[in-house]
Amino acid sequence: MKIINGGITAPIGFVAAGVHCGLKKNVKKKDLAVVYSKKICNAAGVYTTNKVKGAPLIVTMEHLENLKAQAVIVNSGNANTCTGLAGYENAKKMARLTAESLNIKAEDVIVASTGVIGAHLNMDFLEKGIPEVCMAISKQGYIDAREAIKTTDTVKKDLGIEIDIAGKKVTIGAMAKGSGMIHPNMATMLAFITTDLDIDETLLTEALKESVSKTYNMISVDGDTSTNDMTVILANGMAENTKITEKDTNYKIFLDALQFLNTELAKKIAKDGEGATKLLETLVKGASTYEEGAKVAKAVIASSLVKTAMFGADANWGRILCAIGYCGEDINPERVSISFESGKGYIKVYENSQPLDFSEEKAKEILLENEIQIIVELNKGEFEAVAWGCDLSYEYVRINGDYRS
Amino acid sequence: MKIINGGITAPIGFVAAGVHCGLKKNVKKKDLAVVYSKKICNAAGVYTTNKVKGAPLIVTMEHLENLKAQAVIVNSGNANTCTGLAGYENAKKMARLTAESLNIKAEDVIVASTGVIGAHLNMDFLEKGIPEVCMAISKQGYIDAREAIKTTDTVKKDLGIEIDIAGKKVTIGAMAKGSGMIHPNMATMLAFITTDLDIDETLLTEALKESVSKTYNMISVDGDTSTNDMTVILANGMAENTKITEKDTNYKIFLDALQFLNTELAKKIAKDGEGATKLLETLVKGASTYEEGAKVAKAVIASSLVKTAMFGADANWGRILCAIGYCGEDINPERVSISFESGKGYIKVYENSQPLDFSEEKAKEILLENEIQIIVELNKGEFEAVAWGCDLSYEYVRINGDYRS
Repeated sequence: MKIINGGITAPIGFVAAGVHCGLKKNVKKKDLAVVYSKKICNAAGVYTTNKVKGAPLIVTMEHLENLKAQAVIVNSGNANTCTGLAGYENAKKMARLTAESLNIKAEDVIVASTGVIGAHLNMDFLEKGIPEVCMAISKQGYIDAREAIKTTDTVKKDLGIEIDIAGKKVTIGAMAKGSGMIHPNMATMLAFITTDLDIDETLLTEALKESVSKTYNMISVDGDTSTNDMTVILANGMAENTKITEKDTNYKIFLDALQFLNTELAKKIAKDGEGATKLLETLVKGASTYEEGAKVAKAVIASSLVKTAMFGADANWGRILCAIGYCGEDINPERVSISFESGKGYIKVYENSQPLDFSEEKAKEILLENEIQIIVELNKGEFEAVAWGCDLSYEYVRINGDYRS
Repeated sequence: MKIINGGITAPIGFVAAGVHCGLKKNVKKKDLAVVYSKKICNAAGVYTTNKVKGAPLIVTMEHLENLKAQAVIVNSGNANTCTGLAGYENAKKMARLTAESLNIKAEDVIVASTGVIGAHLNMDFLEKGIPEVCMAISKQGYIDAREAIKTTDTVKKDLGIEIDIAGKKVTIGAMAKGSGMIHPNMATMLAFITTDLDIDETLLTEALKESVSKTYNMISVDGDTSTNDMTVILANGMAENTKITEKDTNYKIFLDALQFLNTELAKKIAKDGEGATKLLETLVKGASTYEEGAKVAKAVIASSLVKTAMFGADANWGRILCAIGYCGEDINPERVSISFESGKGYIKVYENSQPLDFSEEKAKEILLENEIQIIVELNKGEFEAVAWGCDLSYEYVRINGDYRS
């Protein structure tokens, strides 16, 4: 497995583009992206668990029922959510306009939107913008596309990787966005994955679900599960590998690669959390099941008090133990130990029901780094789980206190 | 029912005191309080649901097994939590020192602590301080006592009320603290309630539990359920009313009064949330059960995105609908309506799956007030639920980014 250039268009047969169509006021900011495959793809999606689902998700779920797709149209600046029947019609129209421009079927278009909730889309912008963005598709278009899906994101989030499937070179590409309203399961996050792998559509769906559960579903920025989250994967088979039709070694190689790719993007989303100054990783060891460890890891990473302490580089481990205590799992706090690790070293702060006598200076040095690992040892069993998040800063409050203005 | 002066010592037979013993560095800040009843009381307690429980809670739960108590000793500045066996011994010693000073049994002393987690209590301070505070008890001592239980609290939180039970004047008094690490169920909050009512101890326990579930358990400041929460009630029977031994009219009068008192204190805690600039109340109407309404109300009040929007006086109702969507109840967003109300008026912003065309100016005017009501109509049934919280401000981050320093 190696990392390559090219992002979402790295696999054979995929092109993309991004333009400014007017949904964002600032003309310098792109707000509309398209991804297109020359061949129809096997495709799968995973969606938010929020009961309130944006209109684009409803349309995408309909269009992906047959597990086939050929293009993705995404706008930022408006989530097209809580917009009633008109919102649904508008999402349908986005698919239709895209299909007409690309000369494919509307049912093979995936629609996604991100931005403010509860405002109607300005369809004049999209009627002009969709043909324009579809005209602009190219191999280099991944650069504009990844820009066009950003909202409060401050960094680009994409990746390309190459694997070997029975002697054939197979490529996987992806782009994602996500910064606020991020909480398992799923988040205001969008992730689009492309591959030229030839794989059965049911196995593709399974691989996507398995990898999402340990990556995007293990990040939290602010505890709010969004209305518009989705991760979709398109596999066009153009790598011409022997088609994967069972869970053999080749499937495993692909799954591992997908897991790696989604972990990297999930971490990028967590690190770019609204107002974040550092990436937090909670590693829970010694859990009796993966699920137990995951619940503990998520509770710690989602605690506002842990997050503010990390912002202040304060080794206030009592808040970590407190979060473990309320996570709902049957944990004996007396058997837990807690440590911090970063590029500046490692320090254990709590063990055997006792605060350890640690150097506050050393702890400060470790916690001032911008990637921090919180290690929780439960001493119950053999399972591990990891969750990612970020600190809670003044900037988060500033961004969200006045988001719509 | 009328509100009277006197707080925790308002009922007949109760006295209190508060002193500085050294647990807080600032000598001007009181950090040790005692409440004492001349007669032994029927008593009941409700505790945090966090699996990690502070040593004082373990001791109090043991001491309240017989539903009797005569005094409460409380320190602030140190939670005596995650402190192992030494912490338990120290909490026991606090009870013993108090009992010796007041000439009562150690088993009749309730122990509570609040402050930083994971540091051992300095027992030298308490060995000197407990006899001192016990010497200082008086009817006026409620003023010093309510000061001594504060941590990051910025306002006093106490109340006295008077009711009539079958021709006898009965008084209820209370003091509370709580500002951060506040989330249902319970919170880093302490509430102590005294009354001269004569009531069976089992009924007293029931009344306390029922009233806590709709008051302190319906507030959230930051989503973190503390390790040290407790609410206790002491009833010494000195009002000489005919003892309440069944759920008759007199029980109902008492329960209503308790409900009123705990609602007022819960709202004071929410409004004094760390860094809060305003009190938020979520009123959910038209729920099919109370529990459903309560779950919706709690999800809205706990959302960081709703809280930051309210800080910014931004009518970003999509975040409210989003929180309703992920709360776990089966709500049809198409039947929900959302409104805001404050001293400056009322405005409906969402109904029938549609954003309403409202005046942003009017909404801003309403949301700039310091007490805001968010009204959610589910249109499913006849039940209502209310939850309280506060906005999320820069100040919350400042307070918690560097709490221990």
